[in-house]
Amino acid sequence: HQEFDFTDHSHRRYNPLTDSWILVSPHRAKRPWLGQQETPSRPNAPEYDDKCFLCPGNHRATGGSNPKYESTYIFQNDYAAVKTEQPTLPENYNGKDVLKNRLFKVESVRGNCFVICFSPKHNVTIPQMEHGELINVVGAWQKLYNDLAKEARENEKPFKYVQIFENKGTAMGCSNLHPHGQAWCLEAIPSEVSQELKSFKKYKHENHADLLGDFVKLELQERSRIVIENDTFMCVVPYWAVWPFETMIVSKTKIASVAQFTESQKSDLASIMKTLTIKYDNMFECSFPYSMGLHQAPLNATGEELENSWFHMHFYPPLLRSATVRKFLVGFELLGEPQRDLTAEQAAQRLRNLDGEVHYLEKLD
Amino acid sequence: HQEFDFTDHSHRRYNPLTDSWILVSPHRAKRPWLGQQETPSRPNAPEYDDKCFLCPGNHRATGGSNPKYESTYIFQNDYAAVKTEQPTLPENYNGKDVLKNRLFKVESVRGNCFVICFSPKHNVTIPQMEHGELINVVGAWQKLYNDLAKEARENEKPFKYVQIFENKGTAMGCSNLHPHGQAWCLEAIPSEVSQELKSFKKYKHENHADLLGDFVKLELQERSRIVIENDTFMCVVPYWAVWPFETMIVSKTKIASVAQFTESQKSDLASIMKTLTIKYDNMFECSFPYSMGLHQAPLNATGEELENSWFHMHFYPPLLRSATVRKFLVGFELLGEPQRDLTAEQAAQRLRNLDGEVHYLEKLD
Ligand SMILES: O=P(O)(O)O[C@H]1O[C@H](CO)[C@@H](O)[C@H](O)[C@H]1O
Ligand SMILES: O=P(O)(O)O[C@H]1O[C@H](CO)[C@@H](O)[C@H](O)[C@H]1O
Repeated sequence: HQEFDFTDHSHRRYNPLTDSWILVSPHRAKRPWLGQQETPSRPNAPEYDDKCFLCPGNHRATGGSNPKYESTYIFQNDYAAVKTEQPTLPENYNGKDVLKNRLFKVESVRGNCFVICFSPKHNVTIPQMEHGELINVVGAWQKLYNDLAKEARENEKPFKYVQIFENKGTAMGCSNLHPHGQAWCLEAIPSEVSQELKSFKKYKHENHADLLGDFVKLELQERSRIVIENDTFMCVVPYWAVWPFETMIVSKTKIASVAQFTESQKSDLASIMKTLTIKYDNMFECSFPYSMGLHQAPLNATGEELENSWFHMHFYPPLLRSATVRKFLVGFELLGEPQRDLTAEQAAQRLRNLDGEVHYLEKLD
Repeated sequence: HQEFDFTDHSHRRYNPLTDSWILVSPHRAKRPWLGQQETPSRPNAPEYDDKCFLCPGNHRATGGSNPKYESTYIFQNDYAAVKTEQPTLPENYNGKDVLKNRLFKVESVRGNCFVICFSPKHNVTIPQMEHGELINVVGAWQKLYNDLAKEARENEKPFKYVQIFENKGTAMGCSNLHPHGQAWCLEAIPSEVSQELKSFKKYKHENHADLLGDFVKLELQERSRIVIENDTFMCVVPYWAVWPFETMIVSKTKIASVAQFTESQKSDLASIMKTLTIKYDNMFECSFPYSMGLHQAPLNATGEELENSWFHMHFYPPLLRSATVRKFLVGFELLGEPQRDLTAEQAAQRLRNLDGEVHYLEKLD
């Protein structure tokens, strides 16, 4: 009589943040791969590239030029997805058409988009930056969040949420390898965030506790999915992870947003990001691609909305087996449900066992 | 005084099937692209490749070999994501742990996975196949659906849904260019399908009408998003499309599943698929990658579930600007909400204007 084995038998796990299921097929990692190969990012770019739109002092794509910045540098995205001003879309745009009002719901959206250069050096990435430099990055996020909140309050700008994120590596659609992230600020709370806030609210209502508070408690008790932790944060492969080595950095106690970070919390976030990304790079000895971003309180949140917000970051890295073989979330995943080829616990163990102190390129020196 | 212009101003559109929003930034298509380039698939592969696991008569990856098939050929996936038999996961797996029962929901999932070779010829794709050959493909889907439903009924197999899909092209994770699709049959209704069924049910309850019935009516009235149509089906870029040239093929009247198709409906589906995919290939004169799949009634559905099902197919093609430049759904899309760079109406117009009769390779001859 064989027992159910999570590392060998298919199962579905529920994601309480997004209210959806994912299919885990742990035996499937064994199949051969004959498909697309990624190009691992060359780690031998120059420190300054005169053709890079983001390097200090250089001209940008649409005209302006960058100052000779020495730390982080934030500017308005030259190809912003949303604009601060645009004509108003009449509220009754669909008129009295009953079907259109039911099926073609639309709303105008204004906002602002920023690029955040992490470093003046063209050829570094987060795991290769000094702890102090990473504190500056967290500080830049904090300042941007505060500035946008202030602008919204004082100038009656309708900004509601700022989504801070980084696309790292060509495999994740990054078109310039100079270390940078982005921030898209909208007058609407984006779908993913609004779904999470809805789940937090429902959980609080039903259980009189914070979903992520209970989550932290449970992960600390089980420990099998924890990758690293420090005083303020822990990094886990969530039980319901979709991407092969997906992780979440969560604050151990409730912090609503980056705006509330103390100096030591900024330092703790910088250090956990550094350790995690060194582990990522060391896994396949390559610059590990990912999309990552911050989830936190909406700008100027009050009451229940503020109460329900709990700072965390998601890291979505696509690589599965090597520097060149990624996981594709395609046919079944898009039409059916996300599917993964190893368990969250297996991924966490692998990440836990990797060196998080010394980057593989340093060892080559 | 400037008017709101959907082709120039940012807006959000609501997807009533998935109950989520997408951000449309139509002015953004203008930005330069310096990122990853796809490798367009070479259209000069041989008709028979002795190293292909799917060609007639060849050995497969795990041992067995293919018959010398002459039309379509279905076999069990050698690396199935789900298996027909596996040990039972105890229902009270989490015991009395309150937090685990709330946050770590899990269920076992059995099922079966199939590969469907569309043609014995290694070097063709749907747009290059004869209408009659495509009718055979639709026939193979119908037979598979019926067989699985029968097996479930007669052998008390717990199969509930079969997700039929195709990943075409290396950009969509396809690891073998021999024309083929897949079918994953599960004892659970996958998240996406179950969300759609939930939306259909809610719509019916609120409006005493079928969501897709009203949708067909509205699109036929507006016409601006229709790409092609015939007696049974229409192909539209849905109002809430995410992928640049995403389309839906929808039956004009309610057909619950492929099982109900008459001969002429099979023929109509074959012909609309052929026209659509010729247009796709003609757009950038390349083998246009996509993931596509069928959404329909669960196996052996009855009552409300059957009543609410309405056959349709989704096509999710990644290309945006050329044969080598795709849209990446990454940072903002994964953490915030999907974002697109042209309107559904612009995409539909472009597809409408393309030749859907003669494939570009035929013109080169
Ligand atoms: O089954 P295949 O073709 O080997 O694999 C492909 O399709 C599957 C179903 O969408 C995905 O899970 C894989 O990531 C993808 O590479
Ligand atoms: O803004 P970038 O870096 O040019 O573009 C990248 O990130 C955006 C936000 O996730 C995506 O919409 C684009 O598809 C991607 O290529």
